Amino acid sequence: MTIEVSRLNNGFTVATDRMDHVETAAVGVWVGIGARHETPQLNGVSHMLEHMAFKGTARRSAQEIVNQVESVGGQINAYTSRENTAYYLRVLAVDVGLAVDILADILQNSTFEAEELERERAVILQEIGQCTDTPDDLIFDQFQETAYPDQAIGRSILGTADNVRSLDRAALDGYMRGNYGADRMVLAASGKVDHGKILRLAEDAFGALAASDVPAPEPAAYRGGQHAEQRDLEQLHLVLGFDGLAYQDPDFYTMSVLSSVLGGGMSSRLFQEVRERRGLVYSIYTFNTAYQDGGLFGLYAGTGADQVGELMPVVMEQLFSIGDTVSSEEIDRVKAQLRAGLLMALENTRARAERLGQHLLIFGRPIPVEEIVERIDAVDAAAIGRLANRVFAGVPTLAALGPVGPLDRLAGWTARPNAAE
Amino acid sequence: MTIEVSRLNNGFTVATDRMDHVETAAVGVWVGIGARHETPQLNGVSHMLEHMAFKGTARRSAQEIVNQVESVGGQINAYTSRENTAYYLRVLAVDVGLAVDILADILQNSTFEAEELERERAVILQEIGQCTDTPDDLIFDQFQETAYPDQAIGRSILGTADNVRSLDRAALDGYMRGNYGADRMVLAASGKVDHGKILRLAEDAFGALAASDVPAPEPAAYRGGQHAEQRDLEQLHLVLGFDGLAYQDPDFYTMSVLSSVLGGGMSSRLFQEVRERRGLVYSIYTFNTAYQDGGLFGLYAGTGADQVGELMPVVMEQLFSIGDTVSSEEIDRVKAQLRAGLLMALENTRARAERLGQHLLIFGRPIPVEEIVERIDAVDAAAIGRLANRVFAGVPTLAALGPVGPLDRLAGWTARPNAAE
Repeated sequence: MTIEVSRLNNGFTVATDRMDHVETAAVGVWVGIGARHETPQLNGVSHMLEHMAFKGTARRSAQEIVNQVESVGGQINAYTSRENTAYYLRVLAVDVGLAVDILADILQNSTFEAEELERERAVILQEIGQCTDTPDDLIFDQFQETAYPDQAIGRSILGTADNVRSLDRAALDGYMRGNYGADRMVLAASGKVDHGKILRLAEDAFGALAASDVPAPEPAAYRGGQHAEQRDLEQLHLVLGFDGLAYQDPDFYTMSVLSSVLGGGMSSRLFQEVRERRGLVYSIYTFNTAYQDGGLFGLYAGTGADQVGELMPVVMEQLFSIGDTVSSEEIDRVKAQLRAGLLMALENTRARAERLGQHLLIFGRPIPVEEIVERIDAVDAAAIGRLANRVFAGVPTLAALGPVGPLDRLAGWTARPNAAE
Repeated sequence: MTIEVSRLNNGFTVATDRMDHVETAAVGVWVGIGARHETPQLNGVSHMLEHMAFKGTARRSAQEIVNQVESVGGQINAYTSRENTAYYLRVLAVDVGLAVDILADILQNSTFEAEELERERAVILQEIGQCTDTPDDLIFDQFQETAYPDQAIGRSILGTADNVRSLDRAALDGYMRGNYGADRMVLAASGKVDHGKILRLAEDAFGALAASDVPAPEPAAYRGGQHAEQRDLEQLHLVLGFDGLAYQDPDFYTMSVLSSVLGGGMSSRLFQEVRERRGLVYSIYTFNTAYQDGGLFGLYAGTGADQVGELMPVVMEQLFSIGDTVSSEEIDRVKAQLRAGLLMALENTRARAERLGQHLLIFGRPIPVEEIVERIDAVDAAAIGRLANRVFAGVPTLAALGPVGPLDRLAGWTARPNAAE
């Protein structure tokens, strides 16, 4: 096993995944805080914090942060999701110390200066504009809001433009101090790294950080429904989904297999039926998003206004029939795809650090690849049948953006085929 | 050196890049044919051929192709560019033989059946629709057409919708037989591969392929100018560029450094000045595209209608001043970034196969990383100054998509700052 995990006295986790034959390392901090921890008034603060973490600390100006990283050929990046925020670097192996020092600095000593904050508001407003102009991004926000209406987990990660304009230094500082506790943070490093060295660096840099006292977010309450936005586009962009599974659900890996059989590759049912046999789309794929206490299964398709009437019944029929018709050949193929995908990801420092950080936040331990493979291998047609019947019996969520046409068509699109017969 | 290159009697090139510590391989065929080899009547045929190569051969149906690949956990993909078309797989090491067999089959025995062709037309029309709906994709087509008007190299890779509707089996078959000659093809494999074994597989599978007799495409004649499309979007999407450098240009690596100093990372001049100091954009970056006989240097920015009046003079000032003001600190930082990027790419089977295939098509030999590093290290401020003066003295190309406003503003946007003073 190449993975080692340690915990500091304050609850901060340090994990490494050593790869002997590379010359670089990926080092990041995964924080168990994201958009679903926000009140409506603070919606967008997690993401704004992620931006402002790069805008200067007590020891480094914004420009010094990027100059120090890039002058050794490193790359620094970050993302915010509904449950997590991550900050990570890719560096040459000799620069791992710098990487840990910068992560510790931006996560504990950020100053959120007024002038920097004003400029970053403008940048984030441009980011919102870019998302709004990209139909196959925006549709996912509309889908999420429809699946989880009036809930933090349903709101946009970027936040509202009003919030982006008004959130102030005190809000950012308070949110970081209140939520970025040692017990909610995992430093994960993979590549040419030495656990003992990383542990010492982390003790020095994060050892004094206090724990947090973050209340559990409100439970995810899936509701579903329909949302349509008429827009003058070439394609009608659709996301259709159902209530899915939490990380801890015993059927979590069954859902992975089910999702891949339906829309995980070029041999999947939806790709074959909708694109290859009927030519109705260029893009169609499923997704399977898990949270601590819920999840979403769904699919994206981009089609023409004239094609949607053929597409939707075909898609629904694939979903509703899969439980009774999935074959052992399809299941075996998907298992081979998932196994090979795990092996291929093992060759990537960034993917290994990401998996390690995520697993420690979610499960409190690294999940060995062998264990994942074993659980995938245990999935059979009966389990898929039970899960499909459970998931697709639920209320669908449908978001549509583009030449939607008369809105009363939407309800018919998600009806069970032949339901009247 | 881990790279080995062989040539078959018919001119077909076989190249491998062995990585001892991985369990997978990337295997592909890079073909020196792309959209710039097309007549106006055939515009889009290279890309349609790339799609149709997956739609069945004398030995395999379309579904058998993807099933055989995905049932061993492999991934198959392809892309078309202006000068090349590439087909590649990622597979476990034991499946390299299957990968070569499938590549050989789809590149020599495709049948282009009428029914499959009709369906694939519809898929490509959806792909065109998706591109049209994605402003930061579409703007690059508009930029290319404006830089190279009325030339094959300026036309869209996807082709016109009319061509996609009308190109027939004979056109596809003729284009493949006429252009996919052994002398224009490179099989490149990286990862856990054995050169002798790959060579034997390639001899069996590609040894009987004839050479082609492809006339050189019309020379790339950069012209430049302006193109604006008014569209109701949140952001004004801009691509600004200049006549750039061919692969063989002695200043090719000087251009890489110049491009990175201007817009290659978060410490770059444009990112710092336009985003970090002024908050005018979320995305701004430069690109540096080379062809056999020309190239394009350019930048993308997405901004607001109210911000463009501030953005454009700042951008132009950065371009026009870089030649006289670039510092040794900036140059050293960019060299470190480029060196580290080369090292990081060495860890990726796909990136190594891609580089190998491209180098053999373009230069007829693999360029060792050490040679690239040496040439990057040789770049100095004087070389950048000379190149910047040469490039930015040329006619600019500006494409704008979004809330453009009165079109007579555009000409002013690319004027030399303070030109009247």
